[in-house]
Amino acid sequence: MTVELQAPSLTSDFKAAFGGHPAGVSIITADSVTGPVGITASSVASVSAEPPLLAFSLAASSGSAAAIAVADSVVVHLLTTGDLELARTFATSGTERFTGSMVWTRLKTGEPLLMHGGYALRCKILSRTPAGGSLLLAAEVEEIIVPDAAGEPMVYHSRTFHWLGKHSVLPG
Amino acid sequence: MTVELQAPSLTSDFKAAFGGHPAGVSIITADSVTGPVGITASSVASVSAEPPLLAFSLAASSGSAAAIAVADSVVVHLLTTGDLELARTFATSGTERFTGSMVWTRLKTGEPLLMHGGYALRCKILSRTPAGGSLLLAAEVEEIIVPDAAGEPMVYHSRTFHWLGKHSVLPG
Repeated sequence: MTVELQAPSLTSDFKAAFGGHPAGVSIITADSVTGPVGITASSVASVSAEPPLLAFSLAASSGSAAAIAVADSVVVHLLTTGDLELARTFATSGTERFTGSMVWTRLKTGEPLLMHGGYALRCKILSRTPAGGSLLLAAEVEEIIVPDAAGEPMVYHSRTFHWLGKHSVLPG
Repeated sequence: MTVELQAPSLTSDFKAAFGGHPAGVSIITADSVTGPVGITASSVASVSAEPPLLAFSLAASSGSAAAIAVADSVVVHLLTTGDLELARTFATSGTERFTGSMVWTRLKTGEPLLMHGGYALRCKILSRTPAGGSLLLAAEVEEIIVPDAAGEPMVYHSRTFHWLGKHSVLPG
């Protein structure tokens, strides 16, 4: 029998630290053998603009994240305040997705595209680096679907969704 | 002579998409052969809480980012609204850092620690994955310096710093 001891405060302090660290909100979709899949993610970050590269991480042990982890291409939807319902649906396990009442289509290349208020970026996965039980993915953007008018930006912080605008500009 | 042609709109659309995608703000510091170095980064993301892992990216061709790219360990400072001056200093090339007027110290393990309003996480670099001219780094958190009382969270969006609180909670 092996007993692993770990400082209990490190994980709880880590959760407190990142619970308070704000992040933009995305939904990442992909096609899979069982049909379209998607997850809400707060880890999407720009890596470089030339070439256009982004990164995100997945806890890829099961479910939709596991299906996205093996996909060759994904669509990253940057969410806006009008997309709150979508964000919640794809953040909650067991919810029905890609139903008749959800407005979505497929790109010519096959990936599921959700109609939403922000930019959508079709990406080819470049690398998958294991980190603990998770994966760190780098992806090259091959196509960008530009909204007619991008909505207000949405932020996730302390388990709550926030929105940014003139009311939130930091003085100084 | 080689001429590389690239769709001009992809990079500009990418910049517009991520310019409008909000992100928390961090300063990443490390020790280097020339002394302490640091950069302001908006790419820091939690990867997993058990084990405590985070990720970030660096355009590592020169300067402080290049020095951080080769460090074995770093300190990630999650910034709060009181840290605006620090964020600007470490985001601007050529500014003087770690001066007598900047409040900082060294951890027992040698890394520079900036006195600021949020959590600081001392991390060991686990992997460096090339992505274009940039690097995607995964790091394991080994020590967390917890603030007495964490300040208000700060967000970077459209080249402007914002702050979150009750005023920014999204209704619904």
